[in-house]
Amino acid sequence: MTALSEEVTLILIPVAAVVGIGFALIQWFMVSRVNVSKDSSNGMKDKLLEEEEEGVDYHEVASKCAEIQNAISVGATSFLFTEYKYLGIFMGAFAVVIFLFLGSVKGFSTKSEPCTYSQGNICKPALANAVFSTVAFLLGAITSTLSGFLGMKIATYANARTTLEARKGVGKAFITAFRSGAVMGFLLAANGLLVLFVSINLFKLYYGDDWEGLYESITGYGLGGSSMALFGRVGGGIYTKAADVGADLVGKVEKNIPEDDPRNPAVIADNVGDNVGDIAGMGSDLFGSYAESSCAALFVASISSFGVTHDFTAMSYPLIVSSMGIVVCLITTLFATDLFEIKHVSEIEPALKRQLLISTILMTAGIAIVSFFALPSEFSLFNFGTEKAVKNWHLFFCVAIGLWAGLVIGYTTEYYTSNAYSPVQDVADSCRTGAATNVIFGLALGYKSVIIPIFAIAIAIYVSFSLAAMYGIAVAALGMLSTIATGLAIDAYGPISDNAGGIAEMAGMSHKIRERTDALDAAGNTTAAIGKGFAIGSAALVSLALFGAYVSRAGIKAVDVLTPKVFIGLIVGAMLPYWFSAMTMKSVGKAALKMVEEVRRQFNSIPGLMEGRVKPDYANCVKISTDASLREMIPPGALVMLTPLIAGTFFGVETLAGVLAGSLVSGVQVAISASNTGGAWDNAKKYIEAGASEHARSLGPKGSDPHKAAVIGDTIGDPLKDTSGPSLNILIKLMAVESLVFAPFFAAHGGLLFKLL
Amino acid sequence: MTALSEEVTLILIPVAAVVGIGFALIQWFMVSRVNVSKDSSNGMKDKLLEEEEEGVDYHEVASKCAEIQNAISVGATSFLFTEYKYLGIFMGAFAVVIFLFLGSVKGFSTKSEPCTYSQGNICKPALANAVFSTVAFLLGAITSTLSGFLGMKIATYANARTTLEARKGVGKAFITAFRSGAVMGFLLAANGLLVLFVSINLFKLYYGDDWEGLYESITGYGLGGSSMALFGRVGGGIYTKAADVGADLVGKVEKNIPEDDPRNPAVIADNVGDNVGDIAGMGSDLFGSYAESSCAALFVASISSFGVTHDFTAMSYPLIVSSMGIVVCLITTLFATDLFEIKHVSEIEPALKRQLLISTILMTAGIAIVSFFALPSEFSLFNFGTEKAVKNWHLFFCVAIGLWAGLVIGYTTEYYTSNAYSPVQDVADSCRTGAATNVIFGLALGYKSVIIPIFAIAIAIYVSFSLAAMYGIAVAALGMLSTIATGLAIDAYGPISDNAGGIAEMAGMSHKIRERTDALDAAGNTTAAIGKGFAIGSAALVSLALFGAYVSRAGIKAVDVLTPKVFIGLIVGAMLPYWFSAMTMKSVGKAALKMVEEVRRQFNSIPGLMEGRVKPDYANCVKISTDASLREMIPPGALVMLTPLIAGTFFGVETLAGVLAGSLVSGVQVAISASNTGGAWDNAKKYIEAGASEHARSLGPKGSDPHKAAVIGDTIGDPLKDTSGPSLNILIKLMAVESLVFAPFFAAHGGLLFKLL
Repeated sequence: MTALSEEVTLILIPVAAVVGIGFALIQWFMVSRVNVSKDSSNGMKDKLLEEEEEGVDYHEVASKCAEIQNAISVGATSFLFTEYKYLGIFMGAFAVVIFLFLGSVKGFSTKSEPCTYSQGNICKPALANAVFSTVAFLLGAITSTLSGFLGMKIATYANARTTLEARKGVGKAFITAFRSGAVMGFLLAANGLLVLFVSINLFKLYYGDDWEGLYESITGYGLGGSSMALFGRVGGGIYTKAADVGADLVGKVEKNIPEDDPRNPAVIADNVGDNVGDIAGMGSDLFGSYAESSCAALFVASISSFGVTHDFTAMSYPLIVSSMGIVVCLITTLFATDLFEIKHVSEIEPALKRQLLISTILMTAGIAIVSFFALPSEFSLFNFGTEKAVKNWHLFFCVAIGLWAGLVIGYTTEYYTSNAYSPVQDVADSCRTGAATNVIFGLALGYKSVIIPIFAIAIAIYVSFSLAAMYGIAVAALGMLSTIATGLAIDAYGPISDNAGGIAEMAGMSHKIRERTDALDAAGNTTAAIGKGFAIGSAALVSLALFGAYVSRAGIKAVDVLTPKVFIGLIVGAMLPYWFSAMTMKSVGKAALKMVEEVRRQFNSIPGLMEGRVKPDYANCVKISTDASLREMIPPGALVMLTPLIAGTFFGVETLAGVLAGSLVSGVQVAISASNTGGAWDNAKKYIEAGASEHARSLGPKGSDPHKAAVIGDTIGDPLKDTSGPSLNILIKLMAVESLVFAPFFAAHGGLLFKLL
Repeated sequence: MTALSEEVTLILIPVAAVVGIGFALIQWFMVSRVNVSKDSSNGMKDKLLEEEEEGVDYHEVASKCAEIQNAISVGATSFLFTEYKYLGIFMGAFAVVIFLFLGSVKGFSTKSEPCTYSQGNICKPALANAVFSTVAFLLGAITSTLSGFLGMKIATYANARTTLEARKGVGKAFITAFRSGAVMGFLLAANGLLVLFVSINLFKLYYGDDWEGLYESITGYGLGGSSMALFGRVGGGIYTKAADVGADLVGKVEKNIPEDDPRNPAVIADNVGDNVGDIAGMGSDLFGSYAESSCAALFVASISSFGVTHDFTAMSYPLIVSSMGIVVCLITTLFATDLFEIKHVSEIEPALKRQLLISTILMTAGIAIVSFFALPSEFSLFNFGTEKAVKNWHLFFCVAIGLWAGLVIGYTTEYYTSNAYSPVQDVADSCRTGAATNVIFGLALGYKSVIIPIFAIAIAIYVSFSLAAMYGIAVAALGMLSTIATGLAIDAYGPISDNAGGIAEMAGMSHKIRERTDALDAAGNTTAAIGKGFAIGSAALVSLALFGAYVSRAGIKAVDVLTPKVFIGLIVGAMLPYWFSAMTMKSVGKAALKMVEEVRRQFNSIPGLMEGRVKPDYANCVKISTDASLREMIPPGALVMLTPLIAGTFFGVETLAGVLAGSLVSGVQVAISASNTGGAWDNAKKYIEAGASEHARSLGPKGSDPHKAAVIGDTIGDPLKDTSGPSLNILIKLMAVESLVFAPFFAAHGGLLFKLL
């Protein structure tokens, strides 16, 4: 049927994963050659004449960097361990819930059942699905944890190295930060693929020919990944923004000391936050998207002709696309690290943008190859009860349109959040009349930035749905995520540069170095926004695919807005992103107020702190962030985790379908606008600070009234762009995948309330 | 069939309308007894000893008041005339579009057609429907214009009178402001009812027994009303907020002069804005909701058993409910104006809230009576192709649940926007750490305030839909609007008090008077928020009803989210409120920047202005607001008016259905959160200024850092609560009613793009 035989497929996928891991290790090795220990000056002796003239002692600087790096790393590790301890308990409990709910579908019977889709065959008992779904859930949770944790480890390993390399020039620093991002990107992509592949093959030992059951239980993997991601994003987001807002409000606004000044007691917490929020949270998030889109595609395929005819290669199409993605990203990375060298700060953003473009072009060819070799030329796909005839080039277009929609979203995000273009410059200009106009313009910018991404998503949905029904949507999502390794590399680059700047400031490095790290950081703000754009765009496609899979699995034939059950679900679902944002915003606000009080207290009660003679008590601020984030992540987490369970159990599968559709179409808008508004404010502030143009200088310098107004905007944007905005894409994905996993239970026992009435 | 005969119905409805108009005139007469001319001191001689002791000259004060009132009235009238001139051209052009589109459905044929629903009968030609829809559209537009214009006239007539009465005490001032609001409320409700009733009876002269055609063409009335309302809201909203934001940014923030200080060049524009935005805009808006819900209910009834069996009384049920509403509101008003008297500022808010409660309780009984006498005990309603058997008490519950949902929304809004409760106090408290935390807390408050209203709307929808299909939704909307006269009275009360305060300040009245008007104004902010809550809640129900009517008329059997055509409509529709808000927010921002420049220019270039020796050039600021609002209302207006035409013509009826559902479920959230966030910021600022509690005083006084932070929040909230937020409910209603009117065209010729592919 397919050009690629089952045997070759079985070899190719793990090989691609191993190559990805190997490449990540090589990058890591190259980063590790930058020495941060006290004893070395990293070959600086010959090169850094300028710095020498300024009279800075390298040994002392390097030793300070090492010390600060250690503090950040220890803080981040200890926070994540505490977080994982609590989440471990929660995941264990939720695993039991999954087992009980799914086991109860057929009353914990161990009898085999006739298959639903593969007619005439016998499938494994529902109890087996309960057991394997639970196992898959735990595997997903563990892989997600690993992804976040490794990312954090690499980032805290790379931050000081980037700072030190900045002494040699902006190009060297850029490569160090980018390589470190690549380590994270490749480890995550390859790891996710490998664990999924191994799990499928292990589960197969039990399931044998029952592919329906096999791929149904594999969906637990996506649920596990996203559950961890939710808490990672929300907890990390609250942590980082409580520290950041608190540090800025006292440091920048009241005490007029620069960002990342070592005298600020919250500065370590702030830098730890970048790593646990932006890095670990983002890693878990994108891993979740990746796992879910793979699971959604696999599930739909298993009840289509691939599954019924047991065509393993075609069945594995999603995994082969991801394997190809790893190879493509590997080549793309070389363009940034080896084929070109950055010589000037103005080249940073173009270099990062080029990464997106190169990976997209190469991947388009890659998809064509995979679609040709790994698919039969004609086959049929499940389409809500009917079968749809599809050709292999149809799937090429589905994956490709997802991929290119991602690029459009990425570039649009860049346009609206980079200070190289007029939208952010307009926002900066509005600071002339104060913080109020800055906020009004910033909010308007965020709202406006939604338009193009939504059209891009809508077109991708229409094309892929028309060509290949729900399977088309799932592989379109996968297409958008196929270059995840590159996406994550440029995304993780941001917080690493941010940290590098912080370390430069704290280690007392020269103004020149700080300028370089600031430029790296400004580009990082934009790429972080691009990364969030990708995360949201892919989340929209993923959740639609999961939604389709859920509807199929729950046996719903139509989700008709004109039925009251569906409509109330729709409107309440559309409300959930607001409820969720209200919680997370308020949490950041409350935690920030506590942080402000503590920072003020230290400034007032520790003599010599302001003069830099005495060190502040960093640990107390770290503790405030830790406690706040662990406590405050529970209510929003509960909202997301419980909504599908309550809606499904009490209101039934149709209302739940409405809730999913509503939260999807509303959440995407809130998420995009929040992320871009925040990103724009941050860069408007940086635009004034950098003073790179006549216009920018007329608004500055630091400390001017427009700059103060810009700082207020930046502070407001913090929770929008790093807490509530990016968490929302997990909200929509997670509710969808949870519904999918619990669908058999809801279909069998759900809708209690309507049954009663 | 019904207890009420056709003849009695034909008398009762116009009588109720005339009673309403008469009552409004009596209230007007009572307000007019307050004399603002120079020659009179309004019987002040004996009473106002205090004031005399302060050495204020009444004659001078009264004459100043008259002068300021005149300036405001002239400004408002001239703006509205200019606006109406442009809109007249637009409405004329759009009338032609309606005629051409609807006429082309059957190729401008003058042949009669077999009826669609009333089988076996012959209906009038499509061309007649085109003509009468166009006429109804123009009638709706004119009535809407009249509603807004009359409201403005009354408000500008009442503002100075309220100020002068404030000298006698807070109770007298309250009654004057409230009576004036009632004039507007009753005129609007009675007028809307009367025009609709007369139109139906005139149209009937031609249509005779063809009720399908009759009520189909009557829907044009709703479209006309809402089209005017859109431009009224957006234009007025931009006008008022450009002036308000501009005046505040220079006056309060830079020059440290109080609000409404006569030295501020933008102060007249600001006060004019309250009248053209909050009064005229709100009047048109609620008239639109009222007209649309009546039209939606009438249309669904006409294709149900009422229409088929030609039961005129049952058919007129929506109009009889409104007639009862006028009577109920009349009694309710007496509680505020005659039965009790306000003695202390703390009694104002409870008195206004009591109005809501009394009218709701009385109306519940009223609905029961109407449902019993005006409906057959059993009948059938159209339900997307099938018939649903309904009992008269089912409809009672439908109308009543809409009414009570309105009360819940009103009270929730009050809880979140009044500074008597903890949410606003928390926001005020967050000003301690500056504007950034104020904004974060305010946004979170707005998001949170969405939860209860959405559940209230969802429950109302579920119950009314389950009991009586789409007709149930339409009458639920009508139920929410049945107490519109009272709702508008307490709503119009707000801007009148706001103006009264402004006039007191400008006329140089004593601190005591200003304190009284400030208290009236603070209560007015809350009631304005309540009014917006009502407007949004009813808009949600109305647009759902219109949506149902559209789907019926377009012959769609199901709006299935799982079809790509519908889903892309859904996600793009959910995006529209953001696009629209981006435009309106940016417009206010831009216009405000211009205003700031002009105000600054005047302060810098007119010697003696700051010292109060020379009058500023008010006219220039009025011109800036006028020009900005007329220019800037076009793009958002075009977005709303063109979207249904483009979606229907190029993508077809299913996609348009998706767009309507998406914009409805997303727009409601944006609208509620924007209105409440803005209201909360405004009252948080007032809370600090009033300093009525220990906590409030610890944040104040005026000019303190927390107060400055609160002013920034207030300024940001201005466009949210008075421009983009309240315009959004028109967006969702208008797109729905426009789709309904054009449905025959889209069904016949729509979906060009998909036909081509």
